[in-house]
Amino acid sequence: MRIDLNSDLGESFGNYTIGQDPEVLKLVSSANIACGYHAGDHNVMRATVKLAAASGTGLGAHPGLPDLGGFGRRYIEVEPEDVYNMVVYQIGALNAFVQLEGERLQHVKPHGALFNMAAKNRVTADAIARAVRDVDDSLILFGLAGSELVKAGKEHGLKMAQEVFADRSYQPDGTLTPRTEAGSVIEDEAEVTERVLKMIKNGVVTAVDGTEIPIEPDTICVHGDGPKALAFVQNLRTSLQEAGVEIRKVGD
Amino acid sequence: MRIDLNSDLGESFGNYTIGQDPEVLKLVSSANIACGYHAGDHNVMRATVKLAAASGTGLGAHPGLPDLGGFGRRYIEVEPEDVYNMVVYQIGALNAFVQLEGERLQHVKPHGALFNMAAKNRVTADAIARAVRDVDDSLILFGLAGSELVKAGKEHGLKMAQEVFADRSYQPDGTLTPRTEAGSVIEDEAEVTERVLKMIKNGVVTAVDGTEIPIEPDTICVHGDGPKALAFVQNLRTSLQEAGVEIRKVGD
Amino acid sequence: MRIDLNSDLGESFGNYTIGQDPEVLKLVSSANIACGYHAGDHNVMRATVKLAAASGTGLGAHPGLPDLGGFGRRYIEVEPEDVYNMVVYQIGALNAFVQLEGERLQHVKPHGALFNMAAKNRVTADAIARAVRDVDDSLILFGLAGSELVKAGKEHGLKMAQEVFADRSYQPDGTLTPRTEAGSVIEDEAEVTERVLKMIKNGVVTAVDGTEIPIEPDTICVHGDGPKALAFVQNLRTSLQEAGVEIRKVGD
Amino acid sequence: MRIDLNSDLGESFGNYTIGQDPEVLKLVSSANIACGYHAGDHNVMRATVKLAAASGTGLGAHPGLPDLGGFGRRYIEVEPEDVYNMVVYQIGALNAFVQLEGERLQHVKPHGALFNMAAKNRVTADAIARAVRDVDDSLILFGLAGSELVKAGKEHGLKMAQEVFADRSYQPDGTLTPRTEAGSVIEDEAEVTERVLKMIKNGVVTAVDGTEIPIEPDTICVHGDGPKALAFVQNLRTSLQEAGVEIRKVGD
Repeated sequence: MRIDLNSDLGESFGNYTIGQDPEVLKLVSSANIACGYHAGDHNVMRATVKLAAASGTGLGAHPGLPDLGGFGRRYIEVEPEDVYNMVVYQIGALNAFVQLEGERLQHVKPHGALFNMAAKNRVTADAIARAVRDVDDSLILFGLAGSELVKAGKEHGLKMAQEVFADRSYQPDGTLTPRTEAGSVIEDEAEVTERVLKMIKNGVVTAVDGTEIPIEPDTICVHGDGPKALAFVQNLRTSLQEAGVEIRKVGD
Repeated sequence: MRIDLNSDLGESFGNYTIGQDPEVLKLVSSANIACGYHAGDHNVMRATVKLAAASGTGLGAHPGLPDLGGFGRRYIEVEPEDVYNMVVYQIGALNAFVQLEGERLQHVKPHGALFNMAAKNRVTADAIARAVRDVDDSLILFGLAGSELVKAGKEHGLKMAQEVFADRSYQPDGTLTPRTEAGSVIEDEAEVTERVLKMIKNGVVTAVDGTEIPIEPDTICVHGDGPKALAFVQNLRTSLQEAGVEIRKVGD
Repeated sequence: MRIDLNSDLGESFGNYTIGQDPEVLKLVSSANIACGYHAGDHNVMRATVKLAAASGTGLGAHPGLPDLGGFGRRYIEVEPEDVYNMVVYQIGALNAFVQLEGERLQHVKPHGALFNMAAKNRVTADAIARAVRDVDDSLILFGLAGSELVKAGKEHGLKMAQEVFADRSYQPDGTLTPRTEAGSVIEDEAEVTERVLKMIKNGVVTAVDGTEIPIEPDTICVHGDGPKALAFVQNLRTSLQEAGVEIRKVGD
Repeated sequence: MRIDLNSDLGESFGNYTIGQDPEVLKLVSSANIACGYHAGDHNVMRATVKLAAASGTGLGAHPGLPDLGGFGRRYIEVEPEDVYNMVVYQIGALNAFVQLEGERLQHVKPHGALFNMAAKNRVTADAIARAVRDVDDSLILFGLAGSELVKAGKEHGLKMAQEVFADRSYQPDGTLTPRTEAGSVIEDEAEVTERVLKMIKNGVVTAVDGTEIPIEPDTICVHGDGPKALAFVQNLRTSLQEAGVEIRKVGD
């Protein structure tokens, strides 16, 4: 029994600092490093890759929409070839810093709106999967468990890492309960751990109506913004390890 | 006797089109492709690399300062580590598109203000040379003949291509006569050809005061903006070939 | 009988030149001047306002989405308050240049995707109308004839200019036939003139299925990209004048 | 006896938060609000103007170089007309938000590298002074005490506010001791207060070599980054008030 913990890193920009990267790196096994489109810049990328490489964390490119003002979180109408090219560009840029450290890139995880678009829209998903495959078909692509991106990646012959959420409730159709609805976030930490263990051990998650949905968790997305978030990850990590689950990067 | 002809390409951006890339590619042996900082975007880069690769032209990264508004032509006060990182980033991004075409990157030529800063300022020159060497020490670095960048590149063990100007006059110290001074540009095409041939055959150029300056020309920078510029390049190319000089990319 | 002809101007950026502004200014009565978000920069704005003011053309702010890479033509998911603020910002910036020339701003026309969003989405339309009203309630707001923006502007007490298209066919519901469908563009110039005259004289346009749709044309959007487009505008202008229609800016 | 305390505000951008604006506004009498070039965006500007207006602080535009990545702190080679236009643009944009609140803009203070360039370079200083005068000649322009900007502003008929530094030592020629040199920053708070009082009461400051330099202090630049900086400003404010100096915005 094993699981990967991944987090977004290197999201500072110029004079603007965001996140607690050194603390987060002690807790996760894979790092999604911003590539200068939605966040990050070449100096931040260099420093983040160095830091993450030194910690032994799996190094990932975290390409986003070209939208610093919106932090890559808002939907932009983009053509598939545009998506393909922006993913190629960002992986290439990040990879140069990874190679400077004598390391290999482990994975690619699309960011924010691009991640969400790829989860639902097969055309966008295909564009991303093709880009990753064409750049390096040994890269692992991260996608929302059960999403269009997972299907697209598999069809293009990529090794996929299916991402699950530890503290979010699921709908009967396998999608996440929207944050705007009651019960979308699970606050109780014991329940969070129990749910994650059930996903890992039994390959199922219980939806809000009680339906058992099959799920194949490879990696859990965690956040490091604020001391509360860090404590949450630390607790989850400890609970999983105590239950015999190994925290290990997907590329191992 | 051989020489390389290089030109800047892929400088369009989004809805903005600049240059006559297909026509220029018929005349030059090396292409300096913009990397999205001073010009170009991921879509333009993809299309330009494809086009240049199909033409057999030597493929080069053309990193610039992050200044689309100034087209990378104005001096910006940048720290050496910033320069190092921006060069690594841009080479990495361009290289991803080069590899998509199954090609190898031939060279790196800094753009505009970065090129000029590297010609005069050894600290900037060293930062660029280190970046190129650390990304891939088989890359050829283009620098103004006799400049600090040439010295820095050689010291860092890089193969350098020394760039000369066909239609510009030189000062006794080997620098170009500033464009603001009379006689900075040589209009007569026969004289231009004669000067270039003398550089190639004899390794010297005659300065404005008659001094013979030693020069080692590997590549000539040409421009394709406007029908007059294209005709100039076509004439130079023909004249050089008739005089027995082979037009050949530096990487051959 | 009178009509206004409007065109987008000042869309160059830094080293990138687009459009034939001096030629277009001879043909139109209102200028929509880009404000630095989707196109234009402070230098281009200054020059364009000067040029347009000297020609006696009605001066308009042409605010767009913050998306130079997409030229403001692609949909971006933006909150109403964000839209409100971006419109205020851009009108304010353009207005400073208008006042330098001792002129008054005549109108505001949203650009591209923002214009289209405001045509269909009442929330976006309201945000734009509120912004214009709050900055200066004597400004005329341009909107697609019969659109949500026209309704929102009227409700907020603004003087609206309803925009029609000279060479596009209409659907029975008053919307434009999408460009992807056959017959969306009317090529025959005599027919174009006839349709425009019918709109102005009779207040109707004939839809593709023969339905007569009521329309209140205040201004016609024309383009100046390429010699063909300019000739089209020149012809339309002459034909309208010969038929007794005065070409006059909406603010007169 | 009176003095103004000014601070930079509204420097957040999109998802990036910087500064402690609400706390700073309780301590200063004039706010320099970023205008979207070096920091700030239209949403931040709206919120900051609202907040500052509600606090009764003097509202100022804080135009900078177009360099978000460098936070407007690095020198960029810009033409005087470019400087003129960028200042017009930014004042216009900020002013639109000021007018939304029913307020009047009090002053303009150039930011960072633009401020430093204007202090030493008369051509840049003139471009800024002309821009401010042409937009609204009742605006107060802030410049380093004794600098080229102060001279340029006076020559262009502007009311100038001369800025002094509370905790920096001065050279015999009236310039600040560079931060790289020992003794450039005065740590002792009693000494800081004493020096400021001497400037206000006697119109002199003692340089590092003991020379008494004439100085006309209208406003003191303070910073609010970090609890230590806030406490420093609080102490200075209290000490000045106890010594009978009124803290009052320059526009009063």
